[in-house]
Amino acid sequence: MPLPRDYGGQTCALSRSMEVVGERWTLLIVRDAFFGVRRFGEFAAHLRLPRAVLADRLAMLTESGVLTRLPDTGRREVYALTAKGVALWPAVRALTSWGDAFYGAGGGPRRVFRHADDEAPLAEDGRCTGCGAPVPVGDILVAPGPGLAPAAEDDDPVTAALARPHRLLRPLLVPSTTHRSPRGPHS
Amino acid sequence: MPLPRDYGGQTCALSRSMEVVGERWTLLIVRDAFFGVRRFGEFAAHLRLPRAVLADRLAMLTESGVLTRLPDTGRREVYALTAKGVALWPAVRALTSWGDAFYGAGGGPRRVFRHADDEAPLAEDGRCTGCGAPVPVGDILVAPGPGLAPAAEDDDPVTAALARPHRLLRPLLVPSTTHRSPRGPHS
Repeated sequence: MPLPRDYGGQTCALSRSMEVVGERWTLLIVRDAFFGVRRFGEFAAHLRLPRAVLADRLAMLTESGVLTRLPDTGRREVYALTAKGVALWPAVRALTSWGDAFYGAGGGPRRVFRHADDEAPLAEDGRCTGCGAPVPVGDILVAPGPGLAPAAEDDDPVTAALARPHRLLRPLLVPSTTHRSPRGPHS
Repeated sequence: MPLPRDYGGQTCALSRSMEVVGERWTLLIVRDAFFGVRRFGEFAAHLRLPRAVLADRLAMLTESGVLTRLPDTGRREVYALTAKGVALWPAVRALTSWGDAFYGAGGGPRRVFRHADDEAPLAEDGRCTGCGAPVPVGDILVAPGPGLAPAAEDDDPVTAALARPHRLLRPLLVPSTTHRSPRGPHS
């Protein structure tokens, strides 16, 4: 996708990044993809954004090479992060930490990130506070934090699934209308 | 500023962050503030955005507590990052690195970040590759990188000043129409 030159002479790295992920919904979609959200309906139910907007943003992220489409059951497709998309993790993490620090509900972060090997929390710089190692994205658990509201009966399936610790990038949900995949998270 | 509830039920940390800094110009203004840009005209000349848009974004960032206004010479004011604004550095750094990696011109990053104490480059996690220490924002030098275009005669003053290494948060320019401040960078 040729990026428009909206920034005048500014072709710097940050301006190019903001062209792709600066739109208000886009980074939330990417964040959900890290959590293992893969299907159109799951993104729609969790983010509660208009379906036309979601379709547009998913198409843009796919064109930009942040997401890719993979075959699902039947004729359907799912979305997964590419290597370029996974490389956005430090930015997603940094903006989430900033929001927790300055817009948190007071009870602490809604979600915390832990090293899957020893379940110790990650430091701000991405290292494990237990073993000190830098933790690859696929070895990070997203777990409920002290600021997370108690589960409600009308929680969407993504919110309900994230009430338990979950490894990033691993598919979060297996549709109840199909057979469970042997590679699914609950098998 | 009461943040609108545009994300439906999503009051998560990332959605609040994107409310404040997700707009396409906003994080570029914040980035320039890290570089020491302080005056309205300097932001306008460097970012080449319409003055009405710049005024709106500066007002929003001030209302949000990311920037604050400080007295300048005469009746003028300058903008400076608050502690809340400085806490955005890991996000600015992560999005800039991502842009360099995937939208770089091929010659490498336009700007590199170094530890002022030993001039060694910073690693992705913000530590100094020379001494291994985590580097506070005020001890980071922004320096020209291999991908920076050669200086041109019509460079704006901010671009021209950033052709030399400069310590983050330190004022970048002293207006030529006023006496140089004893605390200015060139004194």
